Formats: sequence, C-alpha cells, structure tokens
Amino acid sequence: MLTGCKIAFLGGDARQIEVIQHCSDLDASIILYGYENLKNEFSGAIKKSITPDCFQDMDAIILPVTGMREDGKIDSCFTNKELKLTEEHFKKANKNVVVFTGIANEKLTGFCTENQRCLIELMNLDEVAILNSIPTAEGAILMAIQNTDFTLHGSNAVVLGLGRVGITLARTLQGVGANVFLGARKPEDLARAREMSLQGFHLDELPLIAEKADIIFNTVPATILDASVLVKIQPHALIIDLASKPGGTDFRYADKRGIKAMLAPGLPGIVAPKTAGKIIANSIARLLVEHKSKLGGEI
Amino acid sequence: MLTGCKIAFLGGDARQIEVIQHCSDLDASIILYGYENLKNEFSGAIKKSITPDCFQDMDAIILPVTGMREDGKIDSCFTNKELKLTEEHFKKANKNVVVFTGIANEKLTGFCTENQRCLIELMNLDEVAILNSIPTAEGAILMAIQNTDFTLHGSNAVVLGLGRVGITLARTLQGVGANVFLGARKPEDLARAREMSLQGFHLDELPLIAEKADIIFNTVPATILDASVLVKIQPHALIIDLASKPGGTDFRYADKRGIKAMLAPGLPGIVAPKTAGKIIANSIARLLVEHKSKLGGEI
Amino acid sequence: MLTGCKIAFLGGDARQIEVIQHCSDLDASIILYGYENLKNEFSGAIKKSITPDCFQDMDAIILPVTGMREDGKIDSCFTNKELKLTEEHFKKANKNVVVFTGIANEKLTGFCTENQRCLIELMNLDEVAILNSIPTAEGAILMAIQNTDFTLHGSNAVVLGLGRVGITLARTLQGVGANVFLGARKPEDLARAREMSLQGFHLDELPLIAEKADIIFNTVPATILDASVLVKIQPHALIIDLASKPGGTDFRYADKRGIKAMLAPGLPGIVAPKTAGKIIANSIARLLVEHKSKLGGEI
Amino acid sequence: MLTGCKIAFLGGDARQIEVIQHCSDLDASIILYGYENLKNEFSGAIKKSITPDCFQDMDAIILPVTGMREDGKIDSCFTNKELKLTEEHFKKANKNVVVFTGIANEKLTGFCTENQRCLIELMNLDEVAILNSIPTAEGAILMAIQNTDFTLHGSNAVVLGLGRVGITLARTLQGVGANVFLGARKPEDLARAREMSLQGFHLDELPLIAEKADIIFNTVPATILDASVLVKIQPHALIIDLASKPGGTDFRYADKRGIKAMLAPGLPGIVAPKTAGKIIANSIARLLVEHKSKLGGEI
Ligand SMILES: NC(=O)c1ccc[n+]([C@@H]2O[C@H](COP(=O)([O-])OP(=O)(O)OC[C@H]3O[C@@H](n4cnc5c(N)ncnc54)[C@H](OP(=O)(O)O)[C@@H]3O)[C@@H](O)[C@H]2O)c1
Ligand SMILES: NC(=O)c1ccc[n+]([C@@H]2O[C@H](COP(=O)([O-])OP(=O)(O)OC[C@H]3O[C@@H](n4cnc5c(N)ncnc54)[C@H](OP(=O)(O)O)[C@@H]3O)[C@@H](O)[C@H]2O)c1
Ligand SMILES: NC(=O)c1ccc[n+]([C@@H]2O[C@H](COP(=O)([O-])OP(=O)(O)OC[C@H]3O[C@@H](n4cnc5c(N)ncnc54)[C@H](OP(=O)(O)O)[C@@H]3O)[C@@H](O)[C@H]2O)c1
Ligand SMILES: NC(=O)c1ccc[n+]([C@@H]2O[C@H](COP(=O)([O-])OP(=O)(O)OC[C@H]3O[C@@H](n4cnc5c(N)ncnc54)[C@H](OP(=O)(O)O)[C@@H]3O)[C@@H](O)[C@H]2O)c1
Repeated sequence: MLTGCKIAFLGGDARQIEVIQHCSDLDASIILYGYENLKNEFSGAIKKSITPDCFQDMDAIILPVTGMREDGKIDSCFTNKELKLTEEHFKKANKNVVVFTGIANEKLTGFCTENQRCLIELMNLDEVAILNSIPTAEGAILMAIQNTDFTLHGSNAVVLGLGRVGITLARTLQGVGANVFLGARKPEDLARAREMSLQGFHLDELPLIAEKADIIFNTVPATILDASVLVKIQPHALIIDLASKPGGTDFRYADKRGIKAMLAPGLPGIVAPKTAGKIIANSIARLLVEHKSKLGGEI
Repeated sequence: MLTGCKIAFLGGDARQIEVIQHCSDLDASIILYGYENLKNEFSGAIKKSITPDCFQDMDAIILPVTGMREDGKIDSCFTNKELKLTEEHFKKANKNVVVFTGIANEKLTGFCTENQRCLIELMNLDEVAILNSIPTAEGAILMAIQNTDFTLHGSNAVVLGLGRVGITLARTLQGVGANVFLGARKPEDLARAREMSLQGFHLDELPLIAEKADIIFNTVPATILDASVLVKIQPHALIIDLASKPGGTDFRYADKRGIKAMLAPGLPGIVAPKTAGKIIANSIARLLVEHKSKLGGEI
Repeated sequence: MLTGCKIAFLGGDARQIEVIQHCSDLDASIILYGYENLKNEFSGAIKKSITPDCFQDMDAIILPVTGMREDGKIDSCFTNKELKLTEEHFKKANKNVVVFTGIANEKLTGFCTENQRCLIELMNLDEVAILNSIPTAEGAILMAIQNTDFTLHGSNAVVLGLGRVGITLARTLQGVGANVFLGARKPEDLARAREMSLQGFHLDELPLIAEKADIIFNTVPATILDASVLVKIQPHALIIDLASKPGGTDFRYADKRGIKAMLAPGLPGIVAPKTAGKIIANSIARLLVEHKSKLGGEI
Repeated sequence: MLTGCKIAFLGGDARQIEVIQHCSDLDASIILYGYENLKNEFSGAIKKSITPDCFQDMDAIILPVTGMREDGKIDSCFTNKELKLTEEHFKKANKNVVVFTGIANEKLTGFCTENQRCLIELMNLDEVAILNSIPTAEGAILMAIQNTDFTLHGSNAVVLGLGRVGITLARTLQGVGANVFLGARKPEDLARAREMSLQGFHLDELPLIAEKADIIFNTVPATILDASVLVKIQPHALIIDLASKPGGTDFRYADKRGIKAMLAPGLPGIVAPKTAGKIIANSIARLLVEHKSKLGGEI
C-alpha cells in the first residue's frame, strides 16, 4: 500500500489515468496539476495549480511518458492551461522526492542532478521496456496487416535486432504464422534465435536476406536499412521502423525508390493506452514501496 | 498445366486478378468479360463483351466470389458497364463446362442444375474454407487491436465455435499471447480444445464465461450471443461477429446496452485480397486439371 | 453424480484404478471382479467373484481397455485367478446394462448384439481418441529422444497422417522445435497443415520427403512405409510406427536394410496410465449420466 | 576454412568425434592423442602419443568437455592408455596456441595463465550455453515423461530460474502443453516471463507455488529447494534438478520425506551427443578463424 504517500501528477495522456487510478487504489494522497478538464473522480485526489513550492512535501512527482520539454513545458491532454516547470520547483521540492518520467532530456536531468533529486526514467527500466514491447509488437502487427494485401501468415517477415522489442516482436510474428528471419550481430543472439526456431542471420547478410523479405521490421537504433540494403528490396515489400527517431531507415532513398517505409514511434500509447498505463503504474508503485522501505518507512 | 483450356472470367474484384494471373501462368486461353478498365496485361488473355452463345466452347466459367445476383447481374470492379447473365447463357454453354463461383444463390444453382452444368461453390470446399480462415483470423485480430485500448496479449479472448474459422482464430489469438477460451458443444471439440491448450467450455456455460471476457469472437452461424448472454458482458468488452449475415449476435440489444458489437463479413477480400485470390486460384487450377483428366484429357 | 448407479468392473490395469476412483467419487455402487490383489480401498466398492447371473442388476459393466479375448478371458493385473466371460453372462445381464470396453473383437461384439446389450467401444469415441492422442504423442517424443543421438529441436521430423493422433503429434513436435513435415492425401488436410505452419506434402511425394527425414512417425493404418520409401531413407533415420498392429511399415525390409524401425503400440497405458485412466473415467461418467437421463433417471 | 591450422585433440567422448569431423571438413591438420581405439577415419588426421614438446607448433589444443583432472589426467572413451598433461606441456607449447576446454578447474587455469596461454572455457560462452540448453531441455523432458504416470501436457510444471537453460526449458515445456510456472527474482525476468505467457512468480513465493506443482525443474545453482519448500510439495510431485553439482535441492531431506528428486547433470552429452558435439565444433571453428585473422592470418 501507499498509505500516507503524497504524489503529484503533472500532465500526461490516457496512460496517466491508469497510474492515478492505481495509486488511488493503493491509498496514496494525490494532487493533480494540469487536469482541469478531466471528468473522472479518484478517491484521495484533488486538483491544484502549480506554485513555486508546491512539491515541498511531496514524496513523488510523476511526469508524463514524454517528460519535460527543453523550455520546461509539460504536455497534458487534460487541460488548456500552460503547465511549466522551472529549476526552482526542483530546488524547493522535498529532498527525498522521487521524480518519475518516461524519458528525460538534458534539461530535466540537469534540474534533478544539480539539486540532488532522485530521477527515474521509466522507459529505461528493463521491466518497463520488456512489458512495453508487447503493445509495441501488437502495433507493428496492426500496421503490417493494414498496409499489405497479403497475410502475415506464410509471409517472409524480417526482424532486425534481438533486444527487448525484437524478441517479443519475433515471437508474436511467429505466433501468427509468419516465416520469421531474425538479424543480429552477436553470436549469443544468433544462438537464441536458433533456439526460438527463428531463422537467424548475421546483420552482415542483410542485403541477401532483404531480397526475399515481404516485410521488414526494424528495432535497431542505427541506420542499417541504408541504400545498399534498400536497393535489394522487392517492390511489394513493406518496412516498419520501430527504432526511436530518426529510425534505422534511409527514408529519403526509400521514398526515391518508391518503397513503402513507415516510422512508427510511440505505439504503446496509441495502440493500448490502458495496458501501457498499467505497466507504468505497477512499476511506479513497486519502486515507491521499495523507496519507502529504504527510507525506513519515513515517507 | 492448363494448356488448351478455355476459361471465361466474369467480373470480380482484386482477388480475381490473382486467379487470372495463375491461369495465364498455367498457359490457359482466357477471355475476360467485364474488365474494360483493367490496366494489367496477361499473356493469353483477351477482353470481350457478352453474347448469348459466348460460353459455347468454354471449359470453365469463373464468377466472382460473390457469385450472381438474383436478377442475373454480376459485380465487377473493373468496368462501368452492366454485366448480366440469363438462363440462355447456361443453356448454350459447352455441356462439359465447369462453373466456378464463391457462393451461389438459388437462381444460379437453378440455372446450373436445370441445364446439367457442373457448378462448384468454392467457399463450400473445405480446403478453401480452411485457407480462407487465415486472412479471416488476421482481419479479426486487426479489428480487435483497433477497437480496444488494451493488448490482446494477456486479455481474456473468447472464441465461439471450433469449426474451420474457429480453430484458426483460436490458434492465432494464442500466438499473440491472449488467454483463449473456446466454446463448443461437441465432446470431441472440447477434447480438441483441451489438446490445443485452450480453455474449452460447453456453450451452455457461455453466460458464465461472458462475465470475464474482454473480447468475444463469434464464428457460430446461429444467435448465441442473445440477451441472456449480453446482459452478463462487461462494459469494456468488444464483440466481433464473424458468422455470415446476420451473424450470431442480437445487435439490437447490444446497441441498447451500449455494448460495442461489430459484424465483420468478407474479411479475406478486404484484409488480404492477394492471398485470398491465390487460395482461389490454386483450388480452381487443381480442380480443372482433375476435371480435364476425368474427361480423358478431352478439355 | 452416479448415486444409485451399480457398476461392475472386470479386470484391467493401472488405468482402471482411476476409473474406479472417479466412479467412487461420484457415489456409484461398485463391484470389483478380478481385483483380489488390489491394495487400495475405495468407498462404496466391494470385491466379488463372478457368477452366471452376477450382472443381473448392474447398470454398467466396465471391461479393460484391451477388452475380452476370443476365448472369453479378461486380463487383469490385480489377480492371479482366471477371469472368464461366457455368452450367458450377457444374456442374464440387466437389459438396460451398458457394456464399456476399450476395443471389441468380434466375439464380444457378437455377445452384445445377439443379446441386445448396449456396447460402447471407448477407443472409437472421438473425444477419447483425441485426448488419448496426448499421451501417445508424449510417448512418441520419449522414444524419439531415447533412440537418437541428436535433438528433436531442429531435426526434420516427418508425421504421416493428419488424423486424431497425427494432428496432436505434429503440434507437439513443433512445440519442441522440430522442423515438421506432414504427409496427408486430402486437400483439406494439406490446407490445415499449412494453416498450422507445418510443411505439408501429399503422400505421393513421400519417397522424396523421406530422403531428408531424420525421424518418421507413422499414424496411418496402411503400409505406406514400404520398400519404395525405405530405400530412400538416410542410415541415421529412425522410424516410430504408431499405427495399430501390424503398423504401416515393412519391418522385414527395414530390418534387412539396417533401418531402425519400431512399432510402438499402447503408449498411453505405458507412458501415462494415470492420465489415460482419467480420460476413460470422464467419458464413462459422462455417458452413464446421459444414459441415466435417457432412461428417465431409471438407473 | 582452417587450411594450414594445426589442431591437437586430447581425449574426449562421442561429442569430440563431431568436432574432429568438422575441423577435418574445414581442412585443418589434425593430431589425435588418446584415440587408439577409434575406428573412424578422418582425412587429414593422424594418431600420435604424447611427448613433452608435442604442442610446439600447434595452433590449438582441444580438451574434452570435462577438461583436465586435478592430477593432469584427461578422460578418453577411445583409449585404454593413460593420458596425462603436466605444466611442461603448456610451457613448451606454441606461444599463440589456443587451449579449448569445456570447463576448467584451477589446475588447468593455472597452467595456462602462468604460461600466458590463451584458454577458452566453451561452456562459459553464452552462445554455447544457449545452444546446449536445447539438448538439456530435451533431456529434462525425457526424464519427466519417464518418471511420472501423468502427461506433461496439462500438468503444473514449475521452472526455477530464467537464465540460459530456464528460458529454453520453459518454452519447451510450454510447447508440449504444460502449464508452466516460472520462478525468478529480477523484475525484468518476471516481465519477460509474462511476455512469454508463462505464469511468473517471485522466488519468495516458491513455498506457495510448490503446493500445486506436479513437476519442479530447477536451474538455479543455489539451494532454493530447501526443507521449507520441500515440506509443501505433493507426494506425487517430481523434482528434476539441472543445476550443476550439488544442485539446488536438499536431497537428504527430500529422501527423508519420500519425495522423488533427481540430480541430472551432463544431459547434452547423454541425450544428444551428436548435436552437442556440433555445437562445440561450430564455436571452436568460428573462434579459430577469428583468432587466425587477429594474428594476421599467421596461423
Ligand atoms: N516504436 C515504438 O513504439 C517503440 C516502443 C519501444 C521501443 N522503441 C524503440 O525501439 C528500439 C529498440 O528498443 P529495445 O528496447 O528493443 O532496445 P534494446 O533492448 O537495446 O535492443 C536494441 C537492439 O539493437 C541492436 N543494436 C543496437 N545498435 C546496433 C548497431 N549499431 N548495429 C547492430 N545492432 C545494433 C542491439 O544489439 P547489440 O546487443 O548487438 O548491440 C539490440 O539487440 C529503441 O530505439 C527504442 O527506443 C520503439
Ligand atoms: N467474416 C468473414 O470474413 C468470414 C470468413 C469465413 C467464414 N465466415 C463465416 O464464419 C462462419 C463459420 O465458418 P466456418 O468455415 O468456420 O464454418 P464451420 O466449419 O461449419 O464451423 C461452424 C461452427 O459453428 C458451430 N455451430 C453451428 N451451428 C451451431 C449451433 N446452432 N449451436 C452451436 N454451434 C453451432 C459448429 O459446431 P457443430 O459441429 O457443433 O455444429 C462449428 O464448429 C460461417 O458463417 C461463415 O460463413 C466469415
Ligand atoms: N501407438 C499408440 O499408442 C496409439 C494410440 C492411439 C492410436 N493409435 C493408432 O494410431 C492410428 C491412428 O489413429 P487416429 O486416432 O489418428 O486415427 P484417425 O483419426 O482415423 O487418423 C488416421 C489417419 O490415417 C489416414 N489414412 C488412413 N488410411 C489411409 C491410407 N490408406 N492412405 C493414406 N492415409 C490413410 C487418414 O487420412 P484420410 O482421412 O485421408 O483417410 C487419417 O488422417 C490407428 O491405427 C490407431 O489405432 C496408436
Ligand atoms: N544438467 C545439465 O545437463 C546442465 C546443462 C547446462 C547447464 N547446467 C547447469 O544449469 C545451471 C543453469 O545454467 P544456465 O546456463 O541457465 O545459467 P544462467 O544463465 O547463469 O542462469 C542461472 C539462473 O539462476 C538464477 N540464480 C543464480 N543464483 C541465484 C540465487 N542465489 N537465487 C535465485 N536465483 C539465482 C539466475 O538469476 P539472477 O540473474 O537473478 O541471478 C539465473 O536466472 C548451471 O548450474 C549450469 O551449470 C546443467
């Protein structure tokens, strides 16, 4: 339980509703900033406006998955008012506060390190990245079905990268009956691919494999779908690039050659906001309970 | 090969292109009726207009998946002209002609039986129905991902019916990590469900199972999702009804209770026309070759 | 429940213990013939010796899976005494009695039809055959692992027949990562094989496929692994023949060529007697309850 | 290719035959020590007896999977003669030699480090451990089927540890239809278990989960199946302990309570020596080629 734990929520999207609900279920005291238009009622939650010292006795500050902009602005789907943080907010915050964000830019990281505030980037946590890979894979499947005139079943589907997203995506594609090829560069990744009954290949062989691909899914955050690979691709092939911006595809060249290539960021929040919200909610709750017990239940 | 085999195509949609291509690859002589606007060129194919005795020396007549309307009209995506058949066309056709259609209404069946013309309803063939179940399942998956805010993975997905579509759909849902419940009424179907590691239940238990369902997929062509079941369903649950019109759901009552229920006919042609076309093409080719050898290669 | 239902058990093996236990749990009145050495105690069960009119007021007679021998003898693991039936036993039995057996030879069938006694061959019931295919498949897997020096994972495993056993075995082999080839002769079976992501082939192609096989599992009760196929098989290949005696392999020729070929009958009772017993127990109980309600609860 | 590469093999079992064959296929020059009784002929291989300076111009020395004993003895299935190494052999060896062994004790490690000889422990390489997990899992499946009277399918199978063996074993058990529970302690492992549709639980919950287990497979090299867990286990449950000696089970207590618990070391070499040999062969070949190119092709 989070009884007695004071949590400030700042902005966010549909996912945040799940987090608020979960914290409310665990009996936390909740203050919502930037939720003017939210209809739902949560027990133990009140809406407020930001003041310089509003985090003075907070145990946790929860930012959106997208974090804070360079100018301190926070995005919120639930208000028309501007929501903005300055260094002062962090300086005046409770010294034991935990700041949760999905991802952090330099500005936010700076505010926290300079003021010795504990910052947790949720999307960097393995447990979150692994569970988030599930809605990501479903989003990729959705896009693949929508943008082809053939079935995934029986198609040659190439997955690049056997990281947290790649492993889930490969298994899901296998589950719908695709003929999955898995490109990686480490011997142990190729070993795991073989164990998973995927057709593993070293990324050096990508140009060769690309020739028979019907769909290519990229999870590698480096330009590996460059001109030397794209030139080999069949006209009907589709590229779905899941790596974070700018992706791993030479989109300019793909466009020139008339290859359908799509960059697909932020799928969990689009495809399954409720599930994505629950994933974040569970991790935050677990970390807060741990943090609390570390502080001797001082929270 | 289909060398020397004369085939008439009448109307159709994107799927028919695959059939024409396949017959052309097998060296058949092809005449296209209702394809005025088609851009593609096929070797061995010519475009003509219908005349009363145009099927006089045809070995096969290939109608669209949708067959013929009650008034004799044939749908075609590739022409603006009307395409219409009368009994005379069948009477004057080659006596050994094989008429292929996806589905047949009474009118078409009548024309053929009265004139002793061999009629094959492709969608009734087990092999076609089984292979068609694959794009059907992918279409159902697509709709489920699009119309929910949670992942299929980990959700309670109920499949009704363990026929040709049900078995494929259940396996596909399992492949994406759903928690699959399978409703059937025959002991052997429940046995097979158990062997497939599905959670089988007798359809009599449907009201009970409905309570925990996140998504219900129906393949039973009988109203089994009636008020007594719908009243048990959770507000967030989604119903995707795959059974042919009018489906197996009391849509009026579902609407009244605010339950999201969707009738989803014709998925293969929508979701994967190329694959669906190839399935038909392969079966037609196989049946024509068999027919030819039965006639002592007389075709 | 089976309250008030009188059941006679005659002989059997470890599987029968599960059936007795289940009937006892359902409150049946049980008489055991040929169980002198059985240690277990079951509530509601008593041991007796056979007399000519001992089935006079029985509702059910349960024979072993192996049924009755031509000379009327019944096998039992739980006695040293002879256990023998004559036509008289059936003639004097309750006219509404149901006789359950695993399999029936002509003699037993004759006794029942001539005296109008209802005979149920459990192994012929689809539900039993399907569930029994599970321990059969596990037994086949066991034999394959024991008799090869390579892993099933990654091996070319050929399954012949897509019947009740074949479908389960193919799925299980796929589950352990084998490269599964499925031979069948019906277009709809080849369609289903493709849907299951098996590499389907027409049995006419068997000689070709046999060349690359590491292990061949046969479920077809006809000699399809004849000399013309065996001559193609690799020296290290293993044949596991699951079809009932005499199997589908020309064992004489296999032996001559030094090919390891094994006939493997009766796997469920050997590999998983407890599971196999429960399968039978559930079906018998269900059928007795149905029978009872048909007789107007007269049982 | 390994043309020009001089390789010394010392002792070993059936697995080594695959390694010799592979090196021979790659055109290496091979010297066999301790292979007096071996019947097979390999092109490019000759048999010799050990001399103090016999490794003087060797590029690689390949020891058995079991490595070297504390007294310098090397096990071999292919000779009755003693095969023994001393520090001198390493001192006089080619300075660029690579010594391959499955596992290394302190003595062997000492010989190599003191003389600056490159030592590679194959079983420590992720790629080898991952591929070896496949025959390990099949061996575990074999033992489970042999030592139970129920099917794995539908049973509650608990896997402890989601490391290289655990992940493979869990997937294989799932493939045969077991109801798999996966115990781990890291949040990311529990996340991955959930993604794999396993029923993940924290190892702290083991006593609770143990109550419903039919079979427990341990891969954790620490005593986690202690009295506090064993006391909860059902009488029919089976424990298969795969962790290296002494395993993770309190075998003394298990024995006292009459629980069937088996320590199962060295499964790959027992269950699938050919596959296990090929895994080693491929890794050695890859590493030798890399080593060669690092030395500027000097080998
Ligand atoms: N589209 C979405 O909705 C969505 C959702 C989640 C994540 N993502 C993005 O997807 C990407 C993958 O995420 P993840 O969690 O799977 O990351 P991850 O676990 O770090 O996996 C990345 C994979 O890429 C490989 N890789 C990295 N650099 C490489 C290079 N230069 N050449 C070859 N391989 C390379 C890595 O292999 P090595 O071990 O060999 O380096 C690893 O297997 C990230 O960009 C992430 O931001 C997108
Ligand atoms: N939406 C699409 O794109 C699409 C594509 C293909 C097919 N379909 C339609 O989907 C439906 C199923 O097709 P299919 O090929 O799977 O047919 P199928 O193989 O005949 O299966 C139908 C299943 O429904 C069960 N069933 C029929 N009547 C029932 C009743 N009164 N009560 C309970 N169960 C009943 C059958 O079980 P029993 O054996 O117990 O009767 C059988 O398992 C059809 O209506 C078909 O036209 C739609
Ligand atoms: N070893 C054991 O422990 C064990 C356990 C259970 C069953 N069995 C035995 O295993 C065999 C299969 O059992 P099952 O329950 O799977 O039977 P099943 O459902 O009838 O399947 C038999 C399969 O064999 C095919 N077949 C039959 N005759 C054929 C022929 N002449 N040529 C080509 N294919 C043919 C059938 O295909 P079509 O539809 O094309 O005819 C069908 O797919 C039986 O002999 C049974 O007694 C053994
Ligand atoms: N029987 C055979 O034939 C055979 C074959 C291959 C391997 N093995 C043996 O099997 C064992 C596992 O091998 P592996 O390759 O899977 O190793 P691995 O990849 O290191 O996995 C070991 C697992 O055990 C967990 N673990 C270690 N210490 C723990 C502790 N004190 N409490 C809880 N969890 C703990 C680890 O989790 P954390 O990450 O949380 O530490 C990890 O998931 C080894 O002993 C190996 O020698 C046996």
